[in-house]
Amino acid sequence: MTGFVSFVGSGPGDPELLTLKAVDRLRRADAVLFDDLSSGPILSHARAGADLVGVGKRAGRPSPKQDHVSRLLVDYAQGGGRIVRLKSGDSGVFGRLEEELVALRAAGIPFEIVPGVPSAIAAAASAGIPLTRRLTARRVQFVTGHDMTGALPADIDLGALADPTASTVVFMGKRTFPDLARSLIARGLPPHQPAILAEAVSTPDQKITRSTVADLADRLASEQSPHAALILYGPLADG
Amino acid sequence: MTGFVSFVGSGPGDPELLTLKAVDRLRRADAVLFDDLSSGPILSHARAGADLVGVGKRAGRPSPKQDHVSRLLVDYAQGGGRIVRLKSGDSGVFGRLEEELVALRAAGIPFEIVPGVPSAIAAAASAGIPLTRRLTARRVQFVTGHDMTGALPADIDLGALADPTASTVVFMGKRTFPDLARSLIARGLPPHQPAILAEAVSTPDQKITRSTVADLADRLASEQSPHAALILYGPLADG
Repeated sequence: MTGFVSFVGSGPGDPELLTLKAVDRLRRADAVLFDDLSSGPILSHARAGADLVGVGKRAGRPSPKQDHVSRLLVDYAQGGGRIVRLKSGDSGVFGRLEEELVALRAAGIPFEIVPGVPSAIAAAASAGIPLTRRLTARRVQFVTGHDMTGALPADIDLGALADPTASTVVFMGKRTFPDLARSLIARGLPPHQPAILAEAVSTPDQKITRSTVADLADRLASEQSPHAALILYGPLADG
Repeated sequence: MTGFVSFVGSGPGDPELLTLKAVDRLRRADAVLFDDLSSGPILSHARAGADLVGVGKRAGRPSPKQDHVSRLLVDYAQGGGRIVRLKSGDSGVFGRLEEELVALRAAGIPFEIVPGVPSAIAAAASAGIPLTRRLTARRVQFVTGHDMTGALPADIDLGALADPTASTVVFMGKRTFPDLARSLIARGLPPHQPAILAEAVSTPDQKITRSTVADLADRLASEQSPHAALILYGPLADG
């Protein structure tokens, strides 16, 4: 008998940012396939005896194992029972969800998607900043700072990203931000546009650093920290 | 003694999509100021005896009362205790958070922002669609379909919104989508680009309708339903 897969967004890291539905799915799971970013307190909602399977992806590192993860997920589901595929943030936002959905559909395995709090949303909340503002920020956009090779995506829409009236969150972009910022400034984004580096959002290691686009680009060109980070820029003044 | 305000995103509507932290803040609140969209099961987490204060805003209707809401929030907080300001979805995404933050800061009242699951994220999950795709959708954007007068915002960035390689979610845009779609198609968005109308997301009335940009625009020009709705378009094929 085929199992059932729940894709569960675990939120940005703080176990208190799990949804009630995520906790319910973890409690009832026979197996939980999780990425390295999932923390112990999150996994502790699983019942004793559930299989907890780390599938070893980390944010910011290209994973050569996506096929392997999809195969493992299909194998577990074909074994029957309730499977949770836990992904940090929301699984539909830079969570490589597509590949796993394709594999499940091809194998005829039923699934649901339980949405989570995206890390970008939590970063703005931690910084005390509304991503939209009635007069000055009517558009919010999330973009990835690297493609499969780790470089800035070649076909990135610089016009959309250089709009000073949008709030932008760059995922996995610490390494490529100096290049991106140079291109955006050339396209008209003011160098002094507010920018925020949000590291290890919602965890005890959280660090929120306020800067400008140009200054943050300079800083990231010369230093890198080990923490997962988001970069926010736009009309991000307090309150 | 001044109180403390927790802005709490209640998620898209399903009470199971509250976070554990949202439930905690509701349980400990002395007063909860909520919008009309908050449902009974969500408010039932508040303790007996807490003040539950409806502040009467509905999605899609311009509210003349934002100043009144901000004043009421300041008044409650100045009375002391723990105040929850409950907003549907995530309060930082088209939740008019800015105005209330400004009022609290001016009055010297401390606050926190508890992020929630944005309705756009839940809509994509309900439709079984990843908002990002590794090769075809590297950018996600949220935009509002109306300004303070209820019209399509005049300064909306049509170039960014006509990008067929971004996943776009339009908030409060049912009335203005026919106009928006015409402008986007004129800017190069393919008329047959997949589009989804997501009504009453995550509630018992949820309705997900798959269409195309051109067909959805035609349909919305001739009919309107009473439910709050989001419009998604972009590379939204299943899985």
